[in-house]
Amino acid sequence: MPDRIRMGLVGGGPGSFIGPVHRIAAELDGEIALVAGAFSRDAQRSAEAGRGYGIAPERAYPSIEAMLDAEAARADGIQFVTIATPNFHHLPAACAAMRAGIAVMSDKPMTATLDQARELAAVLAANPVPYGLTYTYSGYPLVREMRERIATGAIGAVRKVVVEYNQGWLAGAGEGKQAEWRLDPARSGEGGCIADIGVHAFHLAEFVTGLRVSRINADLGTVVQGRALDDDCQMFLRFEGGARGLLSASQVMTGEGNDLAIRIYGETGALRWSQENPNRFEWLKGEGGMEVVRAGDPGLSAIAMRGIRLPGGHPEGLLEALANLYRDFARDMRGEGGSLVPGIEDGLRGMALVAAAVAASRAESGWVDLKV
Amino acid sequence: MPDRIRMGLVGGGPGSFIGPVHRIAAELDGEIALVAGAFSRDAQRSAEAGRGYGIAPERAYPSIEAMLDAEAARADGIQFVTIATPNFHHLPAACAAMRAGIAVMSDKPMTATLDQARELAAVLAANPVPYGLTYTYSGYPLVREMRERIATGAIGAVRKVVVEYNQGWLAGAGEGKQAEWRLDPARSGEGGCIADIGVHAFHLAEFVTGLRVSRINADLGTVVQGRALDDDCQMFLRFEGGARGLLSASQVMTGEGNDLAIRIYGETGALRWSQENPNRFEWLKGEGGMEVVRAGDPGLSAIAMRGIRLPGGHPEGLLEALANLYRDFARDMRGEGGSLVPGIEDGLRGMALVAAAVAASRAESGWVDLKV
Amino acid sequence: MPDRIRMGLVGGGPGSFIGPVHRIAAELDGEIALVAGAFSRDAQRSAEAGRGYGIAPERAYPSIEAMLDAEAARADGIQFVTIATPNFHHLPAACAAMRAGIAVMSDKPMTATLDQARELAAVLAANPVPYGLTYTYSGYPLVREMRERIATGAIGAVRKVVVEYNQGWLAGAGEGKQAEWRLDPARSGEGGCIADIGVHAFHLAEFVTGLRVSRINADLGTVVQGRALDDDCQMFLRFEGGARGLLSASQVMTGEGNDLAIRIYGETGALRWSQENPNRFEWLKGEGGMEVVRAGDPGLSAIAMRGIRLPGGHPEGLLEALANLYRDFARDMRGEGGSLVPGIEDGLRGMALVAAAVAASRAESGWVDLKV
Amino acid sequence: MPDRIRMGLVGGGPGSFIGPVHRIAAELDGEIALVAGAFSRDAQRSAEAGRGYGIAPERAYPSIEAMLDAEAARADGIQFVTIATPNFHHLPAACAAMRAGIAVMSDKPMTATLDQARELAAVLAANPVPYGLTYTYSGYPLVREMRERIATGAIGAVRKVVVEYNQGWLAGAGEGKQAEWRLDPARSGEGGCIADIGVHAFHLAEFVTGLRVSRINADLGTVVQGRALDDDCQMFLRFEGGARGLLSASQVMTGEGNDLAIRIYGETGALRWSQENPNRFEWLKGEGGMEVVRAGDPGLSAIAMRGIRLPGGHPEGLLEALANLYRDFARDMRGEGGSLVPGIEDGLRGMALVAAAVAASRAESGWVDLKV
Repeated sequence: MPDRIRMGLVGGGPGSFIGPVHRIAAELDGEIALVAGAFSRDAQRSAEAGRGYGIAPERAYPSIEAMLDAEAARADGIQFVTIATPNFHHLPAACAAMRAGIAVMSDKPMTATLDQARELAAVLAANPVPYGLTYTYSGYPLVREMRERIATGAIGAVRKVVVEYNQGWLAGAGEGKQAEWRLDPARSGEGGCIADIGVHAFHLAEFVTGLRVSRINADLGTVVQGRALDDDCQMFLRFEGGARGLLSASQVMTGEGNDLAIRIYGETGALRWSQENPNRFEWLKGEGGMEVVRAGDPGLSAIAMRGIRLPGGHPEGLLEALANLYRDFARDMRGEGGSLVPGIEDGLRGMALVAAAVAASRAESGWVDLKV
Repeated sequence: MPDRIRMGLVGGGPGSFIGPVHRIAAELDGEIALVAGAFSRDAQRSAEAGRGYGIAPERAYPSIEAMLDAEAARADGIQFVTIATPNFHHLPAACAAMRAGIAVMSDKPMTATLDQARELAAVLAANPVPYGLTYTYSGYPLVREMRERIATGAIGAVRKVVVEYNQGWLAGAGEGKQAEWRLDPARSGEGGCIADIGVHAFHLAEFVTGLRVSRINADLGTVVQGRALDDDCQMFLRFEGGARGLLSASQVMTGEGNDLAIRIYGETGALRWSQENPNRFEWLKGEGGMEVVRAGDPGLSAIAMRGIRLPGGHPEGLLEALANLYRDFARDMRGEGGSLVPGIEDGLRGMALVAAAVAASRAESGWVDLKV
Repeated sequence: MPDRIRMGLVGGGPGSFIGPVHRIAAELDGEIALVAGAFSRDAQRSAEAGRGYGIAPERAYPSIEAMLDAEAARADGIQFVTIATPNFHHLPAACAAMRAGIAVMSDKPMTATLDQARELAAVLAANPVPYGLTYTYSGYPLVREMRERIATGAIGAVRKVVVEYNQGWLAGAGEGKQAEWRLDPARSGEGGCIADIGVHAFHLAEFVTGLRVSRINADLGTVVQGRALDDDCQMFLRFEGGARGLLSASQVMTGEGNDLAIRIYGETGALRWSQENPNRFEWLKGEGGMEVVRAGDPGLSAIAMRGIRLPGGHPEGLLEALANLYRDFARDMRGEGGSLVPGIEDGLRGMALVAAAVAASRAESGWVDLKV
Repeated sequence: MPDRIRMGLVGGGPGSFIGPVHRIAAELDGEIALVAGAFSRDAQRSAEAGRGYGIAPERAYPSIEAMLDAEAARADGIQFVTIATPNFHHLPAACAAMRAGIAVMSDKPMTATLDQARELAAVLAANPVPYGLTYTYSGYPLVREMRERIATGAIGAVRKVVVEYNQGWLAGAGEGKQAEWRLDPARSGEGGCIADIGVHAFHLAEFVTGLRVSRINADLGTVVQGRALDDDCQMFLRFEGGARGLLSASQVMTGEGNDLAIRIYGETGALRWSQENPNRFEWLKGEGGMEVVRAGDPGLSAIAMRGIRLPGGHPEGLLEALANLYRDFARDMRGEGGSLVPGIEDGLRGMALVAAAVAASRAESGWVDLKV
């Protein structure tokens, strides 16, 4: 194993949920080490977080700028940043890093608005470094296996895709830190549920099928009164080539946990997968019969196998899926190729979806084109 | 047990799938007996079918008119007809019976077009007899239990309904008798998948929630080239009072059997049910936790209990669900009350849905009102 | 359809659970008609039951003897009896019928003791008529499919069988009519749980594998204090040829419904089936992969197909499984062959199991041979 | 976060499956760091493994003795060893560490024989250090939740336990490194399947119920010809206080992955859990109804919550379960208390089970006492 790639974390301060998740996933396979961070704008809190992560005191900074400056002066300085802040901060953080020649791994959605996304893309084009987006669910080995199988014709031409992302944690008043910034347009952007989880569903659909959505008809709603942003979305999709799709994403489905699920129907077969039981998918065969494909089965593709650490029947979960993205990002960092980590294009498409869905739904304009 | 109510079957001749299903379900509980039939316009074939059902040779007729005439002359003549023909024949058959003062149990959809449905309703108004529609899935005891629970506040005000009906039997060329007439506008009507199974999903959603759909935004498609009718439908729903809904019905979901499923999300809980495993539903509770409600559990409502014949863990299926509709229809015939068998209003609403969806989807007109 | 075969019911009087079940299942496919019965020793109650079943008043008898006599005098007299009484009455009822030349369909276990079973077998040998036993679960189409597949080598030589029958209805004090006689050695026989459901599990294991158990090591227990009979059984099995087995049957598994399940492991594959979701089984393949075989799939054997009434995805249940036994019994009655209805040999083996298990467990004698 | 506790790994050299698993799990939560190892007796291979783990070259040793000596001389020397070798090496490795005052985390089974286990216990008594055993499955949060609920009366007094561990990876000839040593008595000990996975099932049963097994009746078999050790085990259990149990463990269940599952039936309820879907269990209630308890539900005990890193619906798996044992072991190392990591007593009991089962099964001696 070569030396670990050195990572700096932006955000993920005290009380953060996602910060420790990034730390675990990034370090899981021993290829990356968290060595610095700008965990909070409050120096005190940033230092506190640094202690929690076990990093050297002098490497807990009060801002990404401070971190970039100081780390650049070290022989063992950070090689990339992971951005784990609320959406509105994604753009400035990413741009600062890219302009400093530092690679970026960013939480989704890419930015708060489509304009910001375009700006980010421009800055990246001018300052080319590895750029990754944590559409975490694309890191599940069996998601990747479905992608491989569809690409190699296992179900024939794709005809219909049903993707849904059912959550219930905002069915109530939605208090708590996580809810707070997500429901605030100033920090989250113009999309609520659509930007928070709708884009995950959208990315999964495009990732697995290898097809791009060309048109949408969207119906976004705000179920819990008083909210400024949507908390329930439903959308018809039309893919290039004509395949039909249905996307449902909601955060007010009382009692649901994190039920992201996708079904893809082709001319000669279909696949069904659910995130809450991620180590298997079902393969419906046109000629009849259903096969359950499991993580330990023989015949899985190399792309799936490289993301599986344990023998069949030993469950792996979300941390391992995110770790697979980090391993791919490490490939990018080492210039090795073969990475499947989502990037700038996926980010732009997600933001275009948010913009189009919000506008079209508000105007009840029916079908609209999806343009990046 | 009182004497059995005497039934005549219209359609269901040799090679019919649905005819024997009606016979079994109608007779299952010993309250109804199939005693006559107009099984085919071909006298030979009608006689052959009559022998298969074990009815007296002279009571197998070549037409409903002949049956109504002859049976009216018998002391033990039929008391109602079950109509199990292709859609385009529902209207004339039902009207003939009603005008003869004979009650009607009809396959869905009520007719081939909305205009026909209105005509049927007018004839019924002028000739009041019991009229039932076999929205079979509403006969499942646990579907009825969900209805009861929602009506009594188990999940609070309904916010979102997701209903889907996934079939795959028309994913291929769709040969065979069943496919043939369903894909022929002359016999099926203006709706394909929407009229065949979409209306089931729609009825289920209205039945379980007790709410009516007021607006829709529909996207009907024909996936298999060369077909004259839709084979895949997706629809946004808006219920009176504002609840949101999503309806998906398809007959080209390769590999799917008969996967009708509904989830209803309310302010304080949610229910999930699937027809392929019908003796249970899941009750997600807003405060946390999920309860699986099973057919044998204590605390079920009387309305559910009366449709359950076996102790917990002994599966009942579709025939028993349809039998429950027949038992309700027998209640209607005896004037007892308490019946939940779908009727003329449900039929009209279903046909209104078909008409609105077909027109709106073709015109890409976005949201339209649903008017009976 | 030929004339219906005429059936008389023994037992199944007012308040009976199993009587109506037999009526529905026997008549379901239109090949058999319940026309008479000795529903209760109390003439009043027998008449009352007769009315409930809708049979002619004069054909509700106070005893099987009276029924056999009177029906013998009718041109349209009964052709077979179904015995649905507590176990201790199986022997006299069956013998009376057989001696009158009347065929017998009997509830399991065959008798109350092994000695009685031998006596019944002797009487049958002297009075050959069709004799069937309602090991109902062997009527499920997918159970029969598993049997066919194992017989034709789908999983190679059988190595290990795990069969379990989990119920919870006697976890409490066990009040009610059903519990009462089952817990009374005078009416039930020497076995409690082992005779009530253990024999079902045992028959299923032998039926599906086509192998016979040669030795057992049994551990029967009485979990609820004060009972005279076992309410929980566990058993090691050894089949002829050396295959190993495990049988578990219990009626004190709090909260369980009627969870009969079997798994059969062979050299090259395995099958798993559960009664509570009976229209499918899982086929694990030695080379990897798992196929879910569903009731509507192509490629099912003729023996399974003849017991399936509905297209894939339309669930059938226990009543239909029992109806399949009755259809097979009707084959026997018509002398057609091809029947899979369990018979005298299965009955004897079940009673031998009860006797061996009770004796060996009580004596803690470890392994004992299973001898009929 | 305090400084990481320093761990040395014994075994886990090139090609090892379990070594990297220990590395990931130990380091997952940032409390422990792998800093040294005796990965192989071959110095070359040990060095190679060390590079793979990213540890300093001079800290990859050719033997545990060398490691203990050299590390003792360092200020930052190892504080505990993890033993991940074949069974026969557990005793000498553990004793060497303990005598050097170094704590031990060991793979199960504790040793190769019961005599060795007693010797290990004696050495530990003379050299008290923290000692942990990786009965990994006891680290699953919902396993711990079940233990808590049973301890606090959620299902009343335990009456019956069914635990099974179904694997299929030795159904074939069983080639490969993993199979090789496990099937060799010289390296594995006197038990095959019983020692490899039977002890997991046994520990789980005792851990969850809080009860101890007092008697067993065992049936061990060798299904694949030519093996020196058992590959299929079934066992009746009797717990102190009289509760009944059934244990099944097999490695020849063709097609099974790693299906460890337990059901515990009490007077007033029951719990069911399966390792292949570990983030939930079912709670059957005596009064009726079944609740599915999920990892994200409110109301979980503190003991479960401390092992859960993600919100509901985000699956965690085996690595996280093992990490929970390491976190508990870190508690032990820090002298904090509250640890649930299995220890010497669990190890002794496991080895006593192996010895009793092997002897009793071979002698067909029926019930025997289980004595440590």
